[in-house]
Amino acid sequence: MIIVLKPDATKKQLDHVVERVKALGLKPMVSKGTERTIIGVIGPEDALRVQPLEVIPGVEKVIPVLKPYKLVSKEFRSEPTIVDLGGGVTIGGKRLAIMAGPCSVENRQMLFDTAKAVHSAGATVLRGGAFKPRSSPYSFQGLGEEGLKLLREAARATGMQVVTELMDARDIQLLEQYADLIQIGARNMQNFELLKEVGQSKKPVLLKRGLSATITEFFLAAEYILSQGNFNVILCERGIRTFETATRFTLDLNAVPVIKKLSHLPVVVDPSHGTGEWDYVGPMAKAAVAAGADGLMIEVHPNPEVALSDGPQSLLPKTFAALMKDLKKVAAAVGRAL
Amino acid sequence: MIIVLKPDATKKQLDHVVERVKALGLKPMVSKGTERTIIGVIGPEDALRVQPLEVIPGVEKVIPVLKPYKLVSKEFRSEPTIVDLGGGVTIGGKRLAIMAGPCSVENRQMLFDTAKAVHSAGATVLRGGAFKPRSSPYSFQGLGEEGLKLLREAARATGMQVVTELMDARDIQLLEQYADLIQIGARNMQNFELLKEVGQSKKPVLLKRGLSATITEFFLAAEYILSQGNFNVILCERGIRTFETATRFTLDLNAVPVIKKLSHLPVVVDPSHGTGEWDYVGPMAKAAVAAGADGLMIEVHPNPEVALSDGPQSLLPKTFAALMKDLKKVAAAVGRAL
Amino acid sequence: MIIVLKPDATKKQLDHVVERVKALGLKPMVSKGTERTIIGVIGPEDALRVQPLEVIPGVEKVIPVLKPYKLVSKEFRSEPTIVDLGGGVTIGGKRLAIMAGPCSVENRQMLFDTAKAVHSAGATVLRGGAFKPRSSPYSFQGLGEEGLKLLREAARATGMQVVTELMDARDIQLLEQYADLIQIGARNMQNFELLKEVGQSKKPVLLKRGLSATITEFFLAAEYILSQGNFNVILCERGIRTFETATRFTLDLNAVPVIKKLSHLPVVVDPSHGTGEWDYVGPMAKAAVAAGADGLMIEVHPNPEVALSDGPQSLLPKTFAALMKDLKKVAAAVGRAL
Amino acid sequence: MIIVLKPDATKKQLDHVVERVKALGLKPMVSKGTERTIIGVIGPEDALRVQPLEVIPGVEKVIPVLKPYKLVSKEFRSEPTIVDLGGGVTIGGKRLAIMAGPCSVENRQMLFDTAKAVHSAGATVLRGGAFKPRSSPYSFQGLGEEGLKLLREAARATGMQVVTELMDARDIQLLEQYADLIQIGARNMQNFELLKEVGQSKKPVLLKRGLSATITEFFLAAEYILSQGNFNVILCERGIRTFETATRFTLDLNAVPVIKKLSHLPVVVDPSHGTGEWDYVGPMAKAAVAAGADGLMIEVHPNPEVALSDGPQSLLPKTFAALMKDLKKVAAAVGRAL
Repeated sequence: MIIVLKPDATKKQLDHVVERVKALGLKPMVSKGTERTIIGVIGPEDALRVQPLEVIPGVEKVIPVLKPYKLVSKEFRSEPTIVDLGGGVTIGGKRLAIMAGPCSVENRQMLFDTAKAVHSAGATVLRGGAFKPRSSPYSFQGLGEEGLKLLREAARATGMQVVTELMDARDIQLLEQYADLIQIGARNMQNFELLKEVGQSKKPVLLKRGLSATITEFFLAAEYILSQGNFNVILCERGIRTFETATRFTLDLNAVPVIKKLSHLPVVVDPSHGTGEWDYVGPMAKAAVAAGADGLMIEVHPNPEVALSDGPQSLLPKTFAALMKDLKKVAAAVGRAL
Repeated sequence: MIIVLKPDATKKQLDHVVERVKALGLKPMVSKGTERTIIGVIGPEDALRVQPLEVIPGVEKVIPVLKPYKLVSKEFRSEPTIVDLGGGVTIGGKRLAIMAGPCSVENRQMLFDTAKAVHSAGATVLRGGAFKPRSSPYSFQGLGEEGLKLLREAARATGMQVVTELMDARDIQLLEQYADLIQIGARNMQNFELLKEVGQSKKPVLLKRGLSATITEFFLAAEYILSQGNFNVILCERGIRTFETATRFTLDLNAVPVIKKLSHLPVVVDPSHGTGEWDYVGPMAKAAVAAGADGLMIEVHPNPEVALSDGPQSLLPKTFAALMKDLKKVAAAVGRAL
Repeated sequence: MIIVLKPDATKKQLDHVVERVKALGLKPMVSKGTERTIIGVIGPEDALRVQPLEVIPGVEKVIPVLKPYKLVSKEFRSEPTIVDLGGGVTIGGKRLAIMAGPCSVENRQMLFDTAKAVHSAGATVLRGGAFKPRSSPYSFQGLGEEGLKLLREAARATGMQVVTELMDARDIQLLEQYADLIQIGARNMQNFELLKEVGQSKKPVLLKRGLSATITEFFLAAEYILSQGNFNVILCERGIRTFETATRFTLDLNAVPVIKKLSHLPVVVDPSHGTGEWDYVGPMAKAAVAAGADGLMIEVHPNPEVALSDGPQSLLPKTFAALMKDLKKVAAAVGRAL
Repeated sequence: MIIVLKPDATKKQLDHVVERVKALGLKPMVSKGTERTIIGVIGPEDALRVQPLEVIPGVEKVIPVLKPYKLVSKEFRSEPTIVDLGGGVTIGGKRLAIMAGPCSVENRQMLFDTAKAVHSAGATVLRGGAFKPRSSPYSFQGLGEEGLKLLREAARATGMQVVTELMDARDIQLLEQYADLIQIGARNMQNFELLKEVGQSKKPVLLKRGLSATITEFFLAAEYILSQGNFNVILCERGIRTFETATRFTLDLNAVPVIKKLSHLPVVVDPSHGTGEWDYVGPMAKAAVAAGADGLMIEVHPNPEVALSDGPQSLLPKTFAALMKDLKKVAAAVGRAL
């Protein structure tokens, strides 16, 4: 950590800062420049993190040198993490994982139809919401446990794994019974109680990036999970909030190479929520694979006209199947496989 | 709701849309213009909200005419809501409510010292966190129930009311015992389980705006609470996430007149979290009052140098007392009182 | 255009609005719904665009039905525009155009070295700044006309075309002498004087998206150029300003499919400025091609350590050559060629 | 400047960095910590600013210690700058300057009516556009020189000073004849040619903040003007682009205390453009004064229904007059006067 003093800081103020640093068991190194005095601090930065040195008189700013996260960092583990979902499905290796299915589980028929269609096109994980986070209290809220059962059944029938969202810490045991991968939604990325809860679960976790979360905050949310002992975390870019309104959110594909550079965790991309419009899903799915994503999460609905949620961003099964063919080519072009 | 067809929409597509609208029990009114055909839809828009008409072939866009929220709207209740916190403290009337105290309850001594200081300067509500939402799992997480007890005691000793944050739905009964006003934090603004829970509580709720929530989404989050029967909701602007880094967040004071125009709910402003730096708290607190806010939430700490959280944005008791004197003048200038 | 009246609008207010619409030579169609009265307006919307109907008493909002741009729209021209830069280089067809070179022209040697390297790797357009827009007045400002001459010479020597930025309307004739493609930088996207000037030029124009420009505003800026008679416009996505700081800007690849859907103009992507960091350039360049971009603009410098501008985002010639090989594969996977 | 090395940086890489720093005439001070080696660099940072040290192998990041601007900084001049517009009008002292008038000069009658009205309510500077920057090429573009003449005449008739916008460097001499204060619009904040031009003018300059400019970039744009010799610069906050759509832009009042803390230049606020809606202008104008602004710029139009630009955000003369009475009280409450 580096402490920069104000140009008019007094000797007394400097001494006070030095004393505070020493009191924390750290070693201050003072350098007097022509325009500023700076104090380099050697030792574990954590001690300093809890102490607001910025407020000490004479201090202009405090600059951390180390990153605030550890376990998710490539410095902690240099090899990429490969998350095993069971059933032969892994995420993070050469083979891309495609998660597909409806936004929410509406009924048995539509779920089974969709599951068969996406499986035969090459998807290996079935997605579907049983509990839905909806901005409006007047929107469809999901089927609850009945939805979970249907997901499990449809997955078993087709030979896929299940990913579904946890909304309430009280439901975790229920989800653990039915799901292979527990999703934490974007709106709960900083619901720290939920993060601690899944951190103590044995199930892998798919953590979606919050709408206004920086990548550093995204890593810190993952760190909550890893710090409880669960290292099977998959990060999911799903669009951030910006001023642009041509797309529902701004799918931030830059996050893919940034995460790959700084962390060992796998990263997947959700172009359906990220763009909010079905005809942008294909181009952005291909772009995500080209950028280095380890997988995709795509909404498919047999009849988007009557979907109870997110119809406008859902692909028809036949459009999805055509996209999968294109994705195979793009994957091969960057040394990956579907 | 207005449905705009694509310029090349066919007669058959138009007929299909008209039929779908009628099937929902609504009345379509078709207007053929020179460049576009538009269909006005008369009847309750809710029926349409669940049906994604955008995906029907030939439809260019669907434009809602009504706002998606109801109970929070001024059209539902034209008189301003005044929330009663007990102990003679109300929010939403002529008198502004000042909530002040430390970011988190650290220990008995600092809490009582702060409570006395802010009360004698004119604050009527004591704030303080017992459970802390922290971006990093390595930061101080709060004292828990012990913190709640101390808050209640310090409030009783000084004659103030208590506001504190609910982080986990499982803690609601605990909070109801100790708090007069339950805070939902910015990171939980769309934690819909939590919203439903406080919607069923008898306690008033302080709902903080999410970092990337539009005012419409802020209203929808409040609607969740009102729709469960709890109309004692106070909205709190606390800064949004933008590209600017000179302040920690961008305190959006525009929200004050916007909320006052569209809703009957009271609105307060938190310049401490909104700016993240103590020397901006005073000017922005005065600006909030001038803009028409019904109250303020301000962090005060007897010794910010050793605060376990948010030290840089906390005021010293004497700075707070001086600010309160200034605020009295600004309040009077806009026809309000402290 | 659709005019929505307030719920409490009076008969007299309705009549006044209807009268105003008729006075503009348009035809109002009134629909009285259960909750709102709406007025559909038929006829050329331009007449209404200049008249602020929102301010008429009783009006709640005015919703435009048509897009505010015309000439850039796919409705105006359904076939994709292919821009011819001369020398056999076109942008917008099956073959992608790769523009590469240093951020600024620093001296003859580095420019010629770079030109040779990028040309042999497959680039067909040489980029380089002679006049540099720099945020700080203390940064290197460019070589001026000397830089233009060097660019022309290096392009001639290697058989490439030249793209360079116009900063000042007074320099347009100078640029027309030396450049095959005139660039309008992001910071000048709404410098309307400059837009009109290049609109009257015979040279093709590369228009960069402003840092905070919506795609609609980007189209309107292009419309300025087309409306002056110059239809040879290439749009360039180069990153928008968001809250994220892990990359210098947020390269918004969503813009590629959005532009392709709504406009006939070609679109290229600049991953160097868009990310600001050389090791993100490769993944995002591949992603741009997969998303459907018609070309790329990439910074290459023989020795980024001593570059006078934008060193951190420049590729070494050998890294660029390796990337070009990868891009060929990705292009083929999506039916394009380099 | 502080250079942080990567954890795995080699001795050879460290030596190379040290050598490069020395070659620039600076003094490196190496501190080896437990997790990172850092190099403090003493001497004028400008030398380093042009050299991208980030790209040197082994370097993790480079952290500047000094601010990138100088002349606009409070360290350069600790006393507040008071800009004299002539005619007894100054900006930056105890008395607030109110600039008011129509968005654009439409004709003689409306301009004179507005000028008389705003002057009698207490405004001292007449605003009005002769050349208008419009997002759409199909919108009203202004009266040009005729508009300038009318402004001068109306100002003379009422005893006010004139502020108007410069759009094109070629018009500067024309503006200098008619205006007392030359405005640089938000969309031209980084039109560096224009900045240099007004930097050489004898007239004071009102520089509007760009829609997506950080305050640091705002200062750097002002620095361009000061560095050419013109220190009479007034900064104007006019709203930034964020995700919020309830207001046209997000008026960022936080900029007022931030600018006051870091710079000696006066700052005014434009709530008309900043919010885009007339009924938010009053609350935000009062808030701006309470936050410490040195003046306001407000749009007033005798008949907003027929305004050729920005009607929805214009106040009626009588609304403006009522607001001025309120502003007097708020100004007094914070120790200022109108």
